[in-house]
Amino acid sequence: MDIASLVGLIGAVGMIIGSMIVAGGLGPFIDVPSLLIVFGGTFFAVMFTAPMGTFLGSFGSMAKAFMPKLPKHGKLVETMVELSDLARKDGLMALENQDVPDKFFEKGLQMLVDGADEPKMVKQLEQEIKSMKIRHESTQGVVKGWIDIAPAMGMIGTLIGLVQMLGNMEDPKAIGPAMAVALLTTLYGAFLANVIFGPILSKLETYSADEAIYRELVVAGLRNIAKGESGRAVQDQMVASLPPKVAEKMLAA
Amino acid sequence: MDIASLVGLIGAVGMIIGSMIVAGGLGPFIDVPSLLIVFGGTFFAVMFTAPMGTFLGSFGSMAKAFMPKLPKHGKLVETMVELSDLARKDGLMALENQDVPDKFFEKGLQMLVDGADEPKMVKQLEQEIKSMKIRHESTQGVVKGWIDIAPAMGMIGTLIGLVQMLGNMEDPKAIGPAMAVALLTTLYGAFLANVIFGPILSKLETYSADEAIYRELVVAGLRNIAKGESGRAVQDQMVASLPPKVAEKMLAA
Amino acid sequence: MDIASLVGLIGAVGMIIGSMIVAGGLGPFIDVPSLLIVFGGTFFAVMFTAPMGTFLGSFGSMAKAFMPKLPKHGKLVETMVELSDLARKDGLMALENQDVPDKFFEKGLQMLVDGADEPKMVKQLEQEIKSMKIRHESTQGVVKGWIDIAPAMGMIGTLIGLVQMLGNMEDPKAIGPAMAVALLTTLYGAFLANVIFGPILSKLETYSADEAIYRELVVAGLRNIAKGESGRAVQDQMVASLPPKVAEKMLAA
Amino acid sequence: MDIASLVGLIGAVGMIIGSMIVAGGLGPFIDVPSLLIVFGGTFFAVMFTAPMGTFLGSFGSMAKAFMPKLPKHGKLVETMVELSDLARKDGLMALENQDVPDKFFEKGLQMLVDGADEPKMVKQLEQEIKSMKIRHESTQGVVKGWIDIAPAMGMIGTLIGLVQMLGNMEDPKAIGPAMAVALLTTLYGAFLANVIFGPILSKLETYSADEAIYRELVVAGLRNIAKGESGRAVQDQMVASLPPKVAEKMLAA
Amino acid sequence: MDIASLVGLIGAVGMIIGSMIVAGGLGPFIDVPSLLIVFGGTFFAVMFTAPMGTFLGSFGSMAKAFMPKLPKHGKLVETMVELSDLARKDGLMALENQDVPDKFFEKGLQMLVDGADEPKMVKQLEQEIKSMKIRHESTQGVVKGWIDIAPAMGMIGTLIGLVQMLGNMEDPKAIGPAMAVALLTTLYGAFLANVIFGPILSKLETYSADEAIYRELVVAGLRNIAKGESGRAVQDQMVASLPPKVAEKMLAA
Repeated sequence: MDIASLVGLIGAVGMIIGSMIVAGGLGPFIDVPSLLIVFGGTFFAVMFTAPMGTFLGSFGSMAKAFMPKLPKHGKLVETMVELSDLARKDGLMALENQDVPDKFFEKGLQMLVDGADEPKMVKQLEQEIKSMKIRHESTQGVVKGWIDIAPAMGMIGTLIGLVQMLGNMEDPKAIGPAMAVALLTTLYGAFLANVIFGPILSKLETYSADEAIYRELVVAGLRNIAKGESGRAVQDQMVASLPPKVAEKMLAA
Repeated sequence: MDIASLVGLIGAVGMIIGSMIVAGGLGPFIDVPSLLIVFGGTFFAVMFTAPMGTFLGSFGSMAKAFMPKLPKHGKLVETMVELSDLARKDGLMALENQDVPDKFFEKGLQMLVDGADEPKMVKQLEQEIKSMKIRHESTQGVVKGWIDIAPAMGMIGTLIGLVQMLGNMEDPKAIGPAMAVALLTTLYGAFLANVIFGPILSKLETYSADEAIYRELVVAGLRNIAKGESGRAVQDQMVASLPPKVAEKMLAA
Repeated sequence: MDIASLVGLIGAVGMIIGSMIVAGGLGPFIDVPSLLIVFGGTFFAVMFTAPMGTFLGSFGSMAKAFMPKLPKHGKLVETMVELSDLARKDGLMALENQDVPDKFFEKGLQMLVDGADEPKMVKQLEQEIKSMKIRHESTQGVVKGWIDIAPAMGMIGTLIGLVQMLGNMEDPKAIGPAMAVALLTTLYGAFLANVIFGPILSKLETYSADEAIYRELVVAGLRNIAKGESGRAVQDQMVASLPPKVAEKMLAA
Repeated sequence: MDIASLVGLIGAVGMIIGSMIVAGGLGPFIDVPSLLIVFGGTFFAVMFTAPMGTFLGSFGSMAKAFMPKLPKHGKLVETMVELSDLARKDGLMALENQDVPDKFFEKGLQMLVDGADEPKMVKQLEQEIKSMKIRHESTQGVVKGWIDIAPAMGMIGTLIGLVQMLGNMEDPKAIGPAMAVALLTTLYGAFLANVIFGPILSKLETYSADEAIYRELVVAGLRNIAKGESGRAVQDQMVASLPPKVAEKMLAA
Repeated sequence: MDIASLVGLIGAVGMIIGSMIVAGGLGPFIDVPSLLIVFGGTFFAVMFTAPMGTFLGSFGSMAKAFMPKLPKHGKLVETMVELSDLARKDGLMALENQDVPDKFFEKGLQMLVDGADEPKMVKQLEQEIKSMKIRHESTQGVVKGWIDIAPAMGMIGTLIGLVQMLGNMEDPKAIGPAMAVALLTTLYGAFLANVIFGPILSKLETYSADEAIYRELVVAGLRNIAKGESGRAVQDQMVASLPPKVAEKMLAA
């Protein structure tokens, strides 16, 4: 659970709802047709921007902003050191069925066990990292779609409301409330873009970059194992790539 | 047929029209001179931005957002494996007139049959991919023209309406409706940019990137055939470039 | 004559003027002081952005958006094939005073005749292409200046009009017309940026890219002549760089 | 203490407060619910954009805009020259426990003393610089979050205020003050983005670039020591990387 | 003196002032508190964005938009040709104390006289060019600060004015003039950003690029001298880098 996402979302929404309540209650801020045009209209327009599979898959990916699988660098280095010592003692075959922390690592290890040479392994794993980045960018493209289109739909909704209001100004008393309703879609659009999808995009970009760094680290470690380096040398080289605090803790251990 | 484009477009337009009907009917939202200045004015200004051929050709290209020719990676790898086995057994000449899934593949294959060496074939095919990308970017430039100019034309239309209205304020009752009409062009511009051409651009960019990846895969496969590698080796290397789900299905088969 | 520029400009301006006429005549849309601040003010502010030579030269360059010198790829390949056959038969000296379609080609050819070696010729021609791109970018920078500054001048004009109007509200009847005039500068600014200079910039960028591709093609051809390749080989390699339709037509011939 | 940050912040805030006082006192410009939605809402939404550690750490990093640790190039070159002479005379072991101006330098020096070869030392130090840049970019990403989200929260607050006001227009006298309050959140958002976090981001980017240049200089110096160059040669090469004024002063000494 | 900067600035300011006079005199457009918040507030906020030295130095650099030191390519090539002939005849020592058009050239020449080898000289001069670019970018960053912050300060000033006005609407007659004053800060901000600092930034970027090209030309020439090439060869190679018109004039001479 990403605590910053949870607290941040609840806090920001809470501030906004609180300020609505202070302004006199939530009632005037809820209007079903306005909700429909902004949420529904944006939903469909974003669907239009991407292939159906990418669009549908993006919702699951967005959940990762709240429930990320955080890479554990410490655990990785530890495992890598053990495996490199094992490989030097008993050969690469001994790496078969060893317990490793993730699927990507497992795949690379299996290639070593199967006798792939280092350049081939590296090329194939790098290709997977590249393909992972392309997938992540597709998802982020969908989130960017929400950020771009939601305020536009809000503006379209407000224009529709204004046109309708300006065409019916017989009753001066109705002008205020009609304009209030017209402004709601702009409010919804700004809310979706800035409070929901904007932060989600930033968080996903951060996690995507983190995962790429982690995988590069796996590749670096496996290269060293393939070259037959000692556990100590593997650790030295991997630690230099770690965030400083993680590195210090590890070296202290 | 791209189902996301179809459902997305219909859904988004439906939401907007629905919201107009809820606001009191479509009548007040249709104004022929406003339609003319936004659609017509943008049409001509976008024509100004590009050579005539590129401009006219862009409409056909935009249709691909709805009717894309999706590259079939599975079929490609399958064919490539068969052809590489065939070439190893009977030589490159045996590849003549083999059935392949697309023209680009056919062209590369013909070069091999005609005795072109690998670097020459690769150079020429890469040149074609590059030239395809340039063509796609020209089309996307026209779509970007619509996205940039439509809201500007909407604003110009609204300013024209406001100037006309402000100069004739004798009848206070006419002000509201006149301003309503003035706002319509802004509404049309926002609609064109965000609901029609914005999503089309995103979709075309996605398909263009997909096609480039597919063609790179064809080149990679043909290189392996030229090098005389076995079908198995060809498959291993190509699968690493595939989307993970497609790759798994293929390896399972 | 670039037909898209001509039709596009006339069409877009026609739509806007038509819409003004429908709104009640051109009269209210013409105001000399407003024209002066937007056209004149932008003219001088853009002059401030660039050296005088670049600024003055930009007007001639902008005319190219209407009267481009279109590169003729077909003619180029044809000439190149003839010259390469001639050079193989009679030596590089025979290329002297041959008729070639443009000055850049002529210059490169002269270098070959004068005995320059291939790398020196390529280096010098590439340097010219680079320097051409820098010149084009300077011009495009001036056009971008118009696009950036014209709406700002429009806004400044509108603010001046509003300040003047708000300070003199004794006569309520004068408010509307005064505000109409104030809005005119915003209208002029949007018109200049989006209907005139925006499309001109796009078109110039397209033609600049086309010319660079053409010149690269000249360099590629001259390299092959310097290497003593046959006309057939020269054609094969150059055709791969051509737009597909031009290539097909040429190969069919 | 960064005097420009201090004077700049106090001066800019002073100008704004002064202008409020001239406009009739600070009273009308302070509204607690408005403060809460802009400051609080932005606080939480920015928290949502980043991992909790990065978010919390960003406040300490922002303080560096006021209290930077400025790299001292002169001192660095001096120390480097002494150390290189020492190393040539007494060997790399003599560098142990020498006094150096910062931790990064110390770490590199220790690697030399421990017998690391030059490429290994360079690779590891470059990796640290890269990792420092990634950390700085994370912090800057949080500051950018404030800059992006604060005006949006201001706009959301203003829309909430307008909707509330438009729904309650019975008392015409209340409209003005209600709208004044509604505009306050936009004012707060513009203030946060442009007067506080915008300048902080610029300053942090400057200092981050400076620190990277300084560290590159440390690496360059250590390489020369590892190569056994003389103090004079080390100075010549390092001085070329210094800002011209610092360089002149040093050469004059 | 840069004539385009002078005429452009005077012309643009003249158009704006003229339009104010036509609108009824300069009086309503001058308001001291408004001037203070926009000019003063932006001054301090921009100071906040940069180190004090960079901020203070930026004013002198901005003067270069009016009084540039224009590089003289013709003179440079001439000198370079003379020096290369001299060096071939009498050796590199003969270059000592020769008259050269600028300090950068002098420095490189002195290195040759002092016996530096070509790669060392090139590395050090390139380092100086790089460091010059970094300095210019710092200055341009300050100018960008004015462009970004001035309109924001204008908006803040207008919001302050509106809040004050909306809170005091007892006297309807005061509303217009109060709003006029509120709009003045937006006017000042737009003026500073678009008429003063925007063009200055463009001009400085142009001159900075020109100076870098000039210095690259000096390095190219000195390399040739170090290699002992003839004056003729030096001229040929340098002329290819010159703007076409300068090149033609030189070759004609």
